Parts: sequence; structure tokens; C-alpha cells
Amino acid sequence: MLYWEDFSVGQVFEGGPRPVTKEEIIAFAKRFDPQPFHIDEEAASRSIYGGLIASGWHTIGMAMRMLVDAVMSRYAAIPAPGVDEARWKKPVRPGDTLFLRVEILELIPSRSKPDRGVVRSRVTLNNQKGEEVLTLMPVNLYRRRPAAKA
Amino acid sequence: MLYWEDFSVGQVFEGGPRPVTKEEIIAFAKRFDPQPFHIDEEAASRSIYGGLIASGWHTIGMAMRMLVDAVMSRYAAIPAPGVDEARWKKPVRPGDTLFLRVEILELIPSRSKPDRGVVRSRVTLNNQKGEEVLTLMPVNLYRRRPAAKA
Repeated sequence: MLYWEDFSVGQVFEGGPRPVTKEEIIAFAKRFDPQPFHIDEEAASRSIYGGLIASGWHTIGMAMRMLVDAVMSRYAAIPAPGVDEARWKKPVRPGDTLFLRVEILELIPSRSKPDRGVVRSRVTLNNQKGEEVLTLMPVNLYRRRPAAKA
Repeated sequence: MLYWEDFSVGQVFEGGPRPVTKEEIIAFAKRFDPQPFHIDEEAASRSIYGGLIASGWHTIGMAMRMLVDAVMSRYAAIPAPGVDEARWKKPVRPGDTLFLRVEILELIPSRSKPDRGVVRSRVTLNNQKGEEVLTLMPVNLYRRRPAAKA
């Protein structure tokens, strides 16, 4: 298990490829974001997008899964306080393939809780054409390495 | 259908109640956020949370669904550019019931695209005890009312 101390500023993690299917775009959006351009192929084909696009929350969900697989599952993660900014840059469509990039920006020891530290990072998802489709600035918490017994 | 012009600053929308089940907490997290405190009852019961807690992205997904039902489905919504800030204030647990509140903060006509306008709002989710569990500051786009033919 890795700890907060094991991150370094500038460190980069990568994930993917993650293919995106029409079925999962529709299934996610029916539960969480039932707008016509996410769930109705016919309505979506008449929109300016010319076809179905993924809910932005589905795109973030896919990024989160890649982030857990690439980083958080290997480090002692604590539930996170939040996200400073999310931007959906381009539509994500059925047949796209997504790639994750995580760059560690800042490491801040917690003042109030000495057993943990904050990690700020920039998360980006790119599609198979190299276009940025998502940027996310999460605020994550990780446990600090337990002190060796004296 | 309602348009950007039909919002007013200070307007409040409400949604809920939305019950939260253990089954959906686990199902969401297995797909998008498979950390032990979201998917493993036994590990979660040994954590400082004393039991399973929902993925923050699942909590936002539930808020989004309530937002679509209460607001976006009645207005001419366009896919949104992003979110300025999200904060998970308290854990969301199996058996909780969530309530949505949306307050319209700012209405900004688009300079580059005269057919649309930006709506900034503060979205909060409260649980059945009145505790705030989520705050979200989305940036949404809505169509402007088409001009009457001259």
C-alpha cells in the first residue's frame, strides 16, 4: 500500500483505453440524466450534435473508474472532500475510446488531521483523436505513512 | 417549453424525496468508484464511517436526476459546459432520503451565441435530518426564447 508521502509533484499517471458504447450511454442517462440528447437516438440525430452524446456525469464516472484503477486502488485513499472544477470540452459519443491522464499538482499536509494529506491534481480525458473531452480538478485525501514504532 | 428568459435571480426549485438504497450504492460504485467503503459492507463497517457510504459521484448523479426532473426537463436545456465546484459535506448512507434545492444565482446572456444564455445556480442536497450532504455550483446553458416573426 502506498501513502500520501509516495506522491510527488509533477508525477503523471495514465489509464485506458476505455471504449464507450451506445448502450451504456443510454443506460446511465436513463437513471441519472434523462435529457433527449443522451437517451433518444432520433431526437439526438436532429440536434446540433447529430447523434447521441454521453451525459457529462457519465464521462466523469468513466474517468473516476480509470482514476481508481490507476491510482486510488494502489494508495491509501480517504473519501474526498470535492472537486474544484469540471469542464466538458467536447462531446463523448458511442464508439469513442477514452484515455486518462492525471498530473499531480500539489501536496498539502492536513493541519487539523496529521494522519492525512491533500493531493490536488489535474485529470484529463482524451478521445481516440487526441481531443480533450474532460478536465477535472479533484481535491483528494490520502493517509500518511504510519510512523515506525519507536 | 420555458426558456432562459423565464428564469429569475433568486428563484428556487425543489425536488425529492429521493430514497437511497444499499443495492444502488453498491451497483453504482462497482461500475464507477470501486473503493472498499462504497462496495464492501464488511470493510466499510471497520472504517471510520461505520458502514457503507455512497460514492460522491453517485450522490451527484442523484442530484442531477432530481435537477432534470425539477428544472431541466421543463426548460430548453443545452448540454452544459461544466461545474465550478462540488463539495461532499456529509456521507450519504443506505436508508437516507435526499431533498434537492436549486437557487438561481446569475443569468448571463451569451455574447458569442445570441440564441442561448448561461444560468449559474447553487444546488444543495439535504438528507432527512436536514444536514447538507452536497453543494454543487453548475454552469448551465439554456436556449433564449425565439424572437416572434416580424
